[in-house]
Amino acid sequence: MTETIPVVRHLLDANEQVAQENRDLFDRARTFVVNLMSSPGAGKTSLLQATLPRLPQDVRAGVIEGDIASRLDAERIAALGVAVVQINTGGTCHLDAPMVRGALQHLDLDRLHLLFIENVGNLICPANFALGAHLNVVLASTPEGHDKPYKYPGMFRLADAVVLNKADLIPWLDFDRETFERGLRMVNPRAPLFVVSCKTGEGLDAWLTWLLEQFTAFQNANP
Amino acid sequence: MTETIPVVRHLLDANEQVAQENRDLFDRARTFVVNLMSSPGAGKTSLLQATLPRLPQDVRAGVIEGDIASRLDAERIAALGVAVVQINTGGTCHLDAPMVRGALQHLDLDRLHLLFIENVGNLICPANFALGAHLNVVLASTPEGHDKPYKYPGMFRLADAVVLNKADLIPWLDFDRETFERGLRMVNPRAPLFVVSCKTGEGLDAWLTWLLEQFTAFQNANP
Repeated sequence: MTETIPVVRHLLDANEQVAQENRDLFDRARTFVVNLMSSPGAGKTSLLQATLPRLPQDVRAGVIEGDIASRLDAERIAALGVAVVQINTGGTCHLDAPMVRGALQHLDLDRLHLLFIENVGNLICPANFALGAHLNVVLASTPEGHDKPYKYPGMFRLADAVVLNKADLIPWLDFDRETFERGLRMVNPRAPLFVVSCKTGEGLDAWLTWLLEQFTAFQNANP
Repeated sequence: MTETIPVVRHLLDANEQVAQENRDLFDRARTFVVNLMSSPGAGKTSLLQATLPRLPQDVRAGVIEGDIASRLDAERIAALGVAVVQINTGGTCHLDAPMVRGALQHLDLDRLHLLFIENVGNLICPANFALGAHLNVVLASTPEGHDKPYKYPGMFRLADAVVLNKADLIPWLDFDRETFERGLRMVNPRAPLFVVSCKTGEGLDAWLTWLLEQFTAFQNANP
């Protein structure tokens, strides 16, 4: 089994290289790219459905949807009139940089200011595969419990921001926000935390303000 | 990258072989083994906390807890006075048969009638790694949404039973049970579905009755 180690190393190295090439493409096109990761059902598509219509009119956005199977999420995004490409991994538990590269053939990057990549629902594996995105946003949801940062530290460690969704359910859960936050800070002292409900709209303004600040900073750095 | 294929094949073959050896150990010890799989936070540990105290007094149970990191779940089980071994995978996104074999060194199989293996929270990867268990039980939870069987077919396909947890939250969710069930039946026509709330106790009797039926059938087949 020792032979597997160099092969996996090659795979990850190859992914890193394509991720860097993706990043160069994004920078040249001045497209700001956000990699959105979470457990299954935490609300990645719902966050996009809440975010996309709230963007300023002059910000053209697109979405790459990653799923093992089905076009369900892509259909939800397409219903908003937003350019969307579905990647079906056919079993693979994460998106990788070459998959994203393939999807880019179906998007006109030069026309897009902001591209969201919705990763496969998985709180573990996507953390190991860079895609070339400018931001890693990790979504958690209150029904998953306040222990998630303790149990899945790798994912929370690499987050540039954490969105805690389904805040509207807290009254019916044994969810302790302080425990969640303490766990998050153990592995990630700096990423801002946005507590939101995509259903009621609670907390979305702060998330949107922050996102647009990052977007503007990127635009100013890539004139 | 073609070289990776035979290596992965070897890995899976090696896992299958150890899984078969685990199964032989379980059969010889007359220990009935259940592999419990779900997304992060669906309630695997909560289902065990609800199940273990409801077992008949003469059924001695044990638990193997699989997590990327932390002993949180093992502590919840140990609080019930049940023999428990924690496996920390240190990043690996699933349990495999050799990890389970290692954990068995810390359990007296001959004294155990029923062994639960709580897999790492992941609705994808654990489906690819047999552990030697007699039953694969897949847990889903209502806040994850009714689309999960459509989007994660591999996991639902191999389920011998599906437990849908957090039924108590349905009034506050847009969860359509019929859509969930239709998706489940597309990939798995036969596995019984138990709709439960580990919090209120709703539906647990039917789950427990079925589990004990499987347990008794196993005991009768291994006299």
